[in-house]
Amino acid sequence: MSLLVTGSIGLDTIETPAGKRDNIIGGSAIYFSYAASFFTPVRLVGVVGEDYPTHLFGVFKGREVDTTGLEVRKGSKTFRWHGSYVQDLNNAVSIQTDLNVLAERAPFIPERFVDSKYVFLANTHPALQQEMLKSLTQPKLIVADTMNLWIQTERTELLKLLKGIHGLVLNDGEARLLTEKKNLIQAARDVLRMGPKFVVIKKGEHGCLLCTEKDTFVLPAFPADQVIDPTGAGDSFAGGMMGYLATQGTFSAATIKRALAFGTVVASYTIADFSLAGLQSTDRDAIDDRWHEFKTAMNF
Amino acid sequence: MSLLVTGSIGLDTIETPAGKRDNIIGGSAIYFSYAASFFTPVRLVGVVGEDYPTHLFGVFKGREVDTTGLEVRKGSKTFRWHGSYVQDLNNAVSIQTDLNVLAERAPFIPERFVDSKYVFLANTHPALQQEMLKSLTQPKLIVADTMNLWIQTERTELLKLLKGIHGLVLNDGEARLLTEKKNLIQAARDVLRMGPKFVVIKKGEHGCLLCTEKDTFVLPAFPADQVIDPTGAGDSFAGGMMGYLATQGTFSAATIKRALAFGTVVASYTIADFSLAGLQSTDRDAIDDRWHEFKTAMNF
Repeated sequence: MSLLVTGSIGLDTIETPAGKRDNIIGGSAIYFSYAASFFTPVRLVGVVGEDYPTHLFGVFKGREVDTTGLEVRKGSKTFRWHGSYVQDLNNAVSIQTDLNVLAERAPFIPERFVDSKYVFLANTHPALQQEMLKSLTQPKLIVADTMNLWIQTERTELLKLLKGIHGLVLNDGEARLLTEKKNLIQAARDVLRMGPKFVVIKKGEHGCLLCTEKDTFVLPAFPADQVIDPTGAGDSFAGGMMGYLATQGTFSAATIKRALAFGTVVASYTIADFSLAGLQSTDRDAIDDRWHEFKTAMNF
Repeated sequence: MSLLVTGSIGLDTIETPAGKRDNIIGGSAIYFSYAASFFTPVRLVGVVGEDYPTHLFGVFKGREVDTTGLEVRKGSKTFRWHGSYVQDLNNAVSIQTDLNVLAERAPFIPERFVDSKYVFLANTHPALQQEMLKSLTQPKLIVADTMNLWIQTERTELLKLLKGIHGLVLNDGEARLLTEKKNLIQAARDVLRMGPKFVVIKKGEHGCLLCTEKDTFVLPAFPADQVIDPTGAGDSFAGGMMGYLATQGTFSAATIKRALAFGTVVASYTIADFSLAGLQSTDRDAIDDRWHEFKTAMNF
């Protein structure tokens, strides 16, 4: 089933202990789309400025990513992020963030996408996330991500968004900030009370936590002895998770658990290289093999 | 099979968000012994000062913990630790540490204990750990713990110890300090090169990591929505792990994995109350039930 994603598309400058890359393709919607496309066709909606080197979208060549919803906005500038993981691979330090076009109106959802049943609202302004939801005629599963910035500055809009979605994906720091609970299970339960039927808390190298009304599930990250660039790991995780869910049609806790394991495995490729290179180095067969390896390892 | 443990016995003063307790029974060997005794008879070797309120050892009444090796040393003072988890339940701040009797000679291993096959050298001075090993006539599995203090001040003795043991259990910060590797899998592999056949890195609320020459295994902590006092969680984990191993006789990666899960489950009781109260609230049946629950949950 087609999976719609809207989120950021940007130019990243990334520094890690392994080196530095300037103006590489990045953004939540980019990582998500690539990751999800291992599982299901993806409909990408996003906006860049007229400064964007559109040849970068060549990364989607040969993949089932429909880029009809990509808007190159005249007179606007592309979102840019300069981050460093030199001190701590688990925590990026933002050196510079230029929201640019992300601070403007939401991108337009093409008519041919409005029937999308599976929807992921990657991290962007919660008012834009809600606006895009309004266009959809028959969503079956809506999952969103968010970030500290919106939790701190747009809480009212974010709480409105939470009432209209099925699942929320966020990281541990964000969950604590949103709920003011230190314990992540307590935090997750608080999030459930805000609207979503399930919440997934991403813990970076420590894996993830799933809470539904009835279930609590923790899954470690896939063991990685070398991390080159963690940028996009969380978005790839969400992409793998949603891509798998879109192929299943049911959202039982058991299905979501398997989806989390797919997300975990896909993210393990992302962190193995800069930008999309890690994801570009793999395919669905390799992902399935690693998923089974992971499943076997977790069986004690 | 009998399991010998030597380590600290102390009086703890503990502050957590849930409250404060003064002069409660604590120490690595105490938590370890109680935890391991759910699985196998335990031989406890340790030393306290003449100031020790020996009625505290009543906690072992009715349990298979042989306290013949408990020395109450005249003229010496008991080890005391005052720690606070008020700021961060995952990281204790040491307010005061009085090594006292722990800075003296090692306790004596009774003649009836020298045939012990399973041995856990809980955290203490690595020279004392080695000294105690020398007394043993037929050890089959020797596992040790250590801490930052010895890594920083007694590295030479610690490296000597590592050449004579089968397994090392330590926490993530200690592993990084010992190996100067940030990545925990790389750190664990470095530890293996120092001597042990397996290494278990404890990551507190994030679970644990096992490395052998061939295998890498990560296991999350048992999900806990309320942590009252994390003191002794790592020692209880080691106790559950070693207690189970002592009943198995083989140390394959599969067996160690199951042992880690038992350690994880036992530790989940420890953190649910102050001092030994959490462990005292459970029994082997409840532990087995929670182990199966954990195993089922990890099967995605």
